[in-house]
Amino acid sequence: MIFHIETLMLVSVSLNEIYSALTGGPCVFITSRSADGVDDAMANAWNMLHGMAPAVVTASLMTDHTTTKNILATGVFGISVPGTSLQKKLLASGCCHGWEVGDKFVKCSLEKLEGEALPVPLVGGALAHLECRLTEPDLLARAGILVGEPVAARVDERYWENGLFTCEGRPESTMHSAGEFSFFTRGPVRGW
Amino acid sequence: MIFHIETLMLVSVSLNEIYSALTGGPCVFITSRSADGVDDAMANAWNMLHGMAPAVVTASLMTDHTTTKNILATGVFGISVPGTSLQKKLLASGCCHGWEVGDKFVKCSLEKLEGEALPVPLVGGALAHLECRLTEPDLLARAGILVGEPVAARVDERYWENGLFTCEGRPESTMHSAGEFSFFTRGPVRGW
Repeated sequence: MIFHIETLMLVSVSLNEIYSALTGGPCVFITSRSADGVDDAMANAWNMLHGMAPAVVTASLMTDHTTTKNILATGVFGISVPGTSLQKKLLASGCCHGWEVGDKFVKCSLEKLEGEALPVPLVGGALAHLECRLTEPDLLARAGILVGEPVAARVDERYWENGLFTCEGRPESTMHSAGEFSFFTRGPVRGW
Repeated sequence: MIFHIETLMLVSVSLNEIYSALTGGPCVFITSRSADGVDDAMANAWNMLHGMAPAVVTASLMTDHTTTKNILATGVFGISVPGTSLQKKLLASGCCHGWEVGDKFVKCSLEKLEGEALPVPLVGGALAHLECRLTEPDLLARAGILVGEPVAARVDERYWENGLFTCEGRPESTMHSAGEFSFFTRGPVRGW
């Protein structure tokens, strides 16, 4: 039932607007599926946009990550942007390797949400979800720099306002690495 | 005199620790010098680490940026991480092009701090400064993805504690893009 409720709360958003869920540097889950169907989700603190309308996304991986191997094999990946309620599961997913534990969704008790446009798992309960196609396979294989183009995006409708992702006045915030084993949440939003 | 005071407050920090000034997704100045000596500083909201110890830095540029041309010509660049006191100057530096206005430090009334290790300008009054060598010139020229290795780093000593950059309890915070024309400052830091 929880799965059903979460799904109902997601709204599809434009690829010209979804950038707002990633700008500002949140920690995310990067999700993938191996060629033989084992799902993975890794915690990622280092990611950036490389285009806004439509969005282009990048993330720092390591070439020997299970995530890297999965994405090179399938050409697709997901990004789920968690709020603070997923703090412990985000940490857990960053503290084990897919090649050690198998399906990370099972190991870390992550709720699985299927992609709508691409065969990728996503992390249910997160505030925003992107389904992406890999665009720079050689760069990923050589240097561990992931670049992709979202083809579908959904956001928890409570965190979407006037075409913009926002945590202002909401119960959850994105989490941002503060170095070592700490993070900060979003402070007040101001105009430039 | 202000220049002198600011300089005295900077401490050199290890390339294994400076990552903490960039993790979390702050807006930064990316600074550069043209082959014929014209200095530039651009506002950049999209950057990420790609290594921690020692730090590797990346940023999203456009191939026709003055910054891109300068960095391809010289092979070096700077990153200055501003706090909220530089909010208006950061915005100003993002609202004009070097090829239109010439020296951005002059145009935007930025205080200039010379690099110690590399011939790059840095933005005085910022909380942290990195002097970097370009490592992926072809990637920058082709795709606008900047990758570099810091060779020197300094931090305002008031924002450095136990080998970690922190804004907790300090008067200024880094600024993080919230989409459109808004940003958020750092909320409280918590342990994972």
